[in-house]
Amino acid sequence: MIRTFDLSGNETTLDAGRLGSPAEGVSVRSSILAGGLSQGVHEICVDNGRFRFVVLPTRGMGLWKGWLGDLEIGWRCPVAGPVHPGFVPIAEPSGLGWLDGFDEWLVRCGLVSNGAPDFDDAGRLRHPLHGRIANRPAQSVALSVDPSTGEMTLTGVVEETRFLFHRLRLTSHVATRPGEPGLRITDVVENLSAEAADVQMLYHVNFGPPLLEAGSTLVAPIERLVPRDDRAAEGVEHWNTYGAPQPGYAEQVYFASLRAGSDGDTRVLLKNAESTAGASLQFAVADLRCFTLWKNTAAAADGYVTGLEPGTNFPNPRTHEAKHGRVVSLGPGETIRLQLAIEIHDGAAAVGAVEQSIAALAGDAPPQIITRPQPGWCVT
Amino acid sequence: MIRTFDLSGNETTLDAGRLGSPAEGVSVRSSILAGGLSQGVHEICVDNGRFRFVVLPTRGMGLWKGWLGDLEIGWRCPVAGPVHPGFVPIAEPSGLGWLDGFDEWLVRCGLVSNGAPDFDDAGRLRHPLHGRIANRPAQSVALSVDPSTGEMTLTGVVEETRFLFHRLRLTSHVATRPGEPGLRITDVVENLSAEAADVQMLYHVNFGPPLLEAGSTLVAPIERLVPRDDRAAEGVEHWNTYGAPQPGYAEQVYFASLRAGSDGDTRVLLKNAESTAGASLQFAVADLRCFTLWKNTAAAADGYVTGLEPGTNFPNPRTHEAKHGRVVSLGPGETIRLQLAIEIHDGAAAVGAVEQSIAALAGDAPPQIITRPQPGWCVT
Amino acid sequence: MIRTFDLSGNETTLDAGRLGSPAEGVSVRSSILAGGLSQGVHEICVDNGRFRFVVLPTRGMGLWKGWLGDLEIGWRCPVAGPVHPGFVPIAEPSGLGWLDGFDEWLVRCGLVSNGAPDFDDAGRLRHPLHGRIANRPAQSVALSVDPSTGEMTLTGVVEETRFLFHRLRLTSHVATRPGEPGLRITDVVENLSAEAADVQMLYHVNFGPPLLEAGSTLVAPIERLVPRDDRAAEGVEHWNTYGAPQPGYAEQVYFASLRAGSDGDTRVLLKNAESTAGASLQFAVADLRCFTLWKNTAAAADGYVTGLEPGTNFPNPRTHEAKHGRVVSLGPGETIRLQLAIEIHDGAAAVGAVEQSIAALAGDAPPQIITRPQPGWCVT
Repeated sequence: MIRTFDLSGNETTLDAGRLGSPAEGVSVRSSILAGGLSQGVHEICVDNGRFRFVVLPTRGMGLWKGWLGDLEIGWRCPVAGPVHPGFVPIAEPSGLGWLDGFDEWLVRCGLVSNGAPDFDDAGRLRHPLHGRIANRPAQSVALSVDPSTGEMTLTGVVEETRFLFHRLRLTSHVATRPGEPGLRITDVVENLSAEAADVQMLYHVNFGPPLLEAGSTLVAPIERLVPRDDRAAEGVEHWNTYGAPQPGYAEQVYFASLRAGSDGDTRVLLKNAESTAGASLQFAVADLRCFTLWKNTAAAADGYVTGLEPGTNFPNPRTHEAKHGRVVSLGPGETIRLQLAIEIHDGAAAVGAVEQSIAALAGDAPPQIITRPQPGWCVT
Repeated sequence: MIRTFDLSGNETTLDAGRLGSPAEGVSVRSSILAGGLSQGVHEICVDNGRFRFVVLPTRGMGLWKGWLGDLEIGWRCPVAGPVHPGFVPIAEPSGLGWLDGFDEWLVRCGLVSNGAPDFDDAGRLRHPLHGRIANRPAQSVALSVDPSTGEMTLTGVVEETRFLFHRLRLTSHVATRPGEPGLRITDVVENLSAEAADVQMLYHVNFGPPLLEAGSTLVAPIERLVPRDDRAAEGVEHWNTYGAPQPGYAEQVYFASLRAGSDGDTRVLLKNAESTAGASLQFAVADLRCFTLWKNTAAAADGYVTGLEPGTNFPNPRTHEAKHGRVVSLGPGETIRLQLAIEIHDGAAAVGAVEQSIAALAGDAPPQIITRPQPGWCVT
Repeated sequence: MIRTFDLSGNETTLDAGRLGSPAEGVSVRSSILAGGLSQGVHEICVDNGRFRFVVLPTRGMGLWKGWLGDLEIGWRCPVAGPVHPGFVPIAEPSGLGWLDGFDEWLVRCGLVSNGAPDFDDAGRLRHPLHGRIANRPAQSVALSVDPSTGEMTLTGVVEETRFLFHRLRLTSHVATRPGEPGLRITDVVENLSAEAADVQMLYHVNFGPPLLEAGSTLVAPIERLVPRDDRAAEGVEHWNTYGAPQPGYAEQVYFASLRAGSDGDTRVLLKNAESTAGASLQFAVADLRCFTLWKNTAAAADGYVTGLEPGTNFPNPRTHEAKHGRVVSLGPGETIRLQLAIEIHDGAAAVGAVEQSIAALAGDAPPQIITRPQPGWCVT
């Protein structure tokens, strides 16, 4: 029988015995952080014996960091987080206050909107950068454990509701099994209103050192790739490789559609220069049909990082995306179910295997690499 | 001798013995909520043995819900509250962030302003929707008990001060006696500045099911009633009755002046379709001279609700109201004292009795029901 | 050996024994406040046996108040603080939300900007009044004690970082010795980015009664003094003396450069009418080259106060100051070190002595008192 533990606001450590897990060495630790910008942040560390990761209920069930043994997954943001939403001015007129709280490995952008700030004709903020969901705290935070397999699933409910405007609910499940080199996310986004709603979701999955280094490569079954703007166009020839940290580097962003296998799933891989370690994302292109690659290989001090971003849309201002049909319309009570699996690949063999599987997805047709921003996909 | 209990930030439960109350079955419970958007919210549940209600010091001494036996008073807002002010972006450029925290039975709107957002000529927010007072926490929260009558009075002090601009203090008293089917609010608003100040106050008292249902009626001694806008004008013929929940229903709002008795008090009643249950508000028309009726009979999922709103003004933008003299001018050190009694009526006899008392207030002169928005009262 | 105590988020009281101090009667008390707007504020009271003062880690290591025996240092702001940053809407479109949290004796204004709100051409807020640093909580809060001298130093680290924009760190040290009638601040501001940054800092040091009263005088080695605007020009003839509280008094602000001694330090003194008590500030004019005097002798109820404000710039909008070169440019990894000593002078002899030292700094050359606002220094 599945065991369930209520972790809402609780400080507790659960070992294999308490969890009723068949695997030694697994544990779950729930804590409330103290001090500075992290004051009051609830974090939960799940350790499956091989891979451990930190979930942040206070920040919309985002993932803070992960570790496969000594290999740290995530990035070293100049922001010293995790940051409590109370210190993140997302409503700042600039629309950029979200950046004060951003330091996660995986942060969800949505649900009403994501992407660049969106202003009305009077210059007044309509939608802030990347939306509100990452700065909304989860309720009903619980862990369930399947005693037969040891699968642990952390669940949290995050609501993005404005009376008279929208009533959206994200129910997030983060699952992992003993020894699994990664985790699997299943998110259900529900329109609880009796009226239709348009939603957006983008998984902003960020990697810094050591996976990101000079010579790292992004491997993806590109169907079509377009530079977001002139700055990205400058680097389109080597869109899939990374340079060393470079002070003053201005971000380059590419928009892409990906090919999928017969099951509808696609996969993208970031691997290090030696091809001895990597991380891959797997998801369904029917659900997350827009893939964004964010290259921000600035100095280490300023956040040397790349983002692999499967989304329902490209992160342009919401108004632009709506105009081009890149919002998800949900009728009253309707839901969408989004799945994203992240796997860490340790060793040349593991990296090689996933590369082969991506090559199979890519097939023989060459990718279309467009060298200039394109109307429709881009704000031109 | 009156007993007094300091409840500022305290978690405690006081029974009749501790309270020194002559009545069995009374109690007061003070708690700090945990989890999600309610993290850190201080709530106090006062039970007089017949009627119990929850006061929210953290949200400006608002009333969250009440219960007369099994009869729940309040509404089912899509917002899952009570919401800590730290998650309510009242300064959002749209002026609508207040809606993220709104789910109370009774919420005060003021003190500098209430009503629709008010912008300057550059489109920059001047006054946010319904002002700041509901998102300011109370200090000096205390309960006093009169051992002779058992009357319990909860007091809290909420300050709305901006250095160089205004220094206003609300001292709120919420009183109830053992067995009383309701409560009585006495609010003192004080201008602590050495300079004059203009203030506003509106009690946004909200009812959903079961009191609100198809066939519910608003009974009020109307002197003059005006639809706020064209949308309200559409429904002016049946302004005082309610339909069933209707998805997509756009709110209809009516502005009114009410007749009073020789003591200066008026009364309005919301009763259910069968006239077997109701809730009434009693207040002085000299103090709260503007009565607003908000009909929002949208789908249950989106908040099927009506608001009975006695105020010092109509909830138009502050600039409009000031232009038409609907602000309260307080000299240095001056106060206004506002009283509002809420009674729940259980059974046809109780409902009938209050209806008769309202009929007596209305007298023989017919109400003026105006069918179009009027300049002055309305933004036309 | 120096003893160090971690005070991050801790509630504790340390007496001379625990501190390892050679002096009787010294103590340090760390508390978390509860109730109202102060909920969750961390304050640390340092008592050196003669002078005690309260530091606010939650408010950027500001100083709340001080006491030399019975003599209270600070002011009586209408804001009932200390106020938690979560209740301060610094991102409000008006740019004035900072005022909701302002009640300290000493508050830092910076680091990206200070001064009046700064808007872009569309009227959208660019820099809020006095910047963000006073509403950012410190981390790594620690106390160190030198057992040989008894010197106690409180340290805290406050970060002002926005990913992609700036990465600034303030490391503040507040030191005092047993029996010292004051304290010494050493602030290090560091540009942690790999890119250059422009910073500003202003120490807003505020005094009300009893030091401020009718007849109080500001003693300063003025080189040049300019009224900020027409309102200040009205009072320029008696710029250095104070009147009694006056309801409706509109603030008068003067900008000045000061003369220094051979060590580069200058000193300013506020003394009471009888010259029996005073407070002085000592700092290096090379670092804090702009001195602002803020006179706000309004009614006691509205904050009868004067501010002595050594800064890297005048508190005009950031854009104006940048245009006139009054920002501090820091290369990657560069720091500035700012020192400010505050001493309280008790008795006519002590006041007389500091007056003499200021007279020596002033020398024989008469001060230039300009009677009209000047382009460059002022926004004209």
